[in-house]
Amino acid sequence: MGTKRNQRKRNRRLQIIDAAIKVIAQHGYHSAKMTNIAAEAGVADGTIYNYFESKEQVLICIFEEKMTELIAQATLKINAHQSPVDKVRAFVRNHFEHLQRNPELGKVFQVELRQSQQFFHGYRPKKLFEYLDLLGSAIREGQRAGIFRSHLDSMILQWSIFGTLDELSINWVMSEQQWPPDLDTVPEQVLEIFLLGIESPLENE
Amino acid sequence: MGTKRNQRKRNRRLQIIDAAIKVIAQHGYHSAKMTNIAAEAGVADGTIYNYFESKEQVLICIFEEKMTELIAQATLKINAHQSPVDKVRAFVRNHFEHLQRNPELGKVFQVELRQSQQFFHGYRPKKLFEYLDLLGSAIREGQRAGIFRSHLDSMILQWSIFGTLDELSINWVMSEQQWPPDLDTVPEQVLEIFLLGIESPLENE
Repeated sequence: MGTKRNQRKRNRRLQIIDAAIKVIAQHGYHSAKMTNIAAEAGVADGTIYNYFESKEQVLICIFEEKMTELIAQATLKINAHQSPVDKVRAFVRNHFEHLQRNPELGKVFQVELRQSQQFFHGYRPKKLFEYLDLLGSAIREGQRAGIFRSHLDSMILQWSIFGTLDELSINWVMSEQQWPPDLDTVPEQVLEIFLLGIESPLENE
Repeated sequence: MGTKRNQRKRNRRLQIIDAAIKVIAQHGYHSAKMTNIAAEAGVADGTIYNYFESKEQVLICIFEEKMTELIAQATLKINAHQSPVDKVRAFVRNHFEHLQRNPELGKVFQVELRQSQQFFHGYRPKKLFEYLDLLGSAIREGQRAGIFRSHLDSMILQWSIFGTLDELSINWVMSEQQWPPDLDTVPEQVLEIFLLGIESPLENE
């Protein structure tokens, strides 16, 4: 009985989170109202406060909940491969697949979340670090195996790749999905840039 | 006489902008008050409104003014070189030199500016595009010369490098300059990553 009730509470919570993503993506974080989120979720205005004490908390919970999903998904994709190069490929491809499948969440992550004071001042986005560690681990594994340049700082490398993914994602979201025009080829270009570098092979001979 | 008066107005304006950078870096954009900025600039509370109609406008003007300076500086550094590779190197090195010399401005650019609604909704940061075009031009020049891989999309490349610089800068600012620990070696690692790629040369043979 208790478990069933907990499950119902958890479903209701996820329902509110998904509604909040829609409302915040459409109206922007500052203009979005708790009452709009309640309406979109199909719950009474008062109900929403049984789950979240403020709009700021809704935003943080969107981040926590959806990053947990993204981490699980990326882990699955990465673990399907043995080679560190393929693991890096899987991480980068999955990042853009996830964005393409969840454009409203993309808007919340890439634009709206960054306007939260709490998120920038004092909050430690542990889930982001956990996500990036999937990439960092593949990089370090490749370095130990002599596949990746071992004198490169794996943290700098991890944040460089993430910065690239993040900036291209922001562009896609802010341009209303106009640029980059094709999220299927973007990861391939990014992977070539990072794996082989930008210098022409002729030049390196 | 008119010119002298204009010059004085311009100096006063820059003085307020520099004071605003200090105050916003210290208190955060939302907590910073126009009256604090006036005090820091050593002008009367009313005077500041002769120059800027709102705190939001001060923030936008910090961006415009300081990006203009950064563009001028980067152009000078880039133009000292002939080879596209050296131009890319100059751009990346200058970016971190500028951050290291202007940590308070870094805080405003990397953290506070992004919390402005106006900046994200509707405002086109033309100066950012102008700055990035310096990098994009060097890349395209290198592609035409066969030095850089020509099938890579120069816009994706430009935003990838910028994403990397930006993400590492955010880390430095948010960690109170703790990580990355040494902004002199960061550009060299970043340049190696992009120019040569991360795969070990042995692997490519």
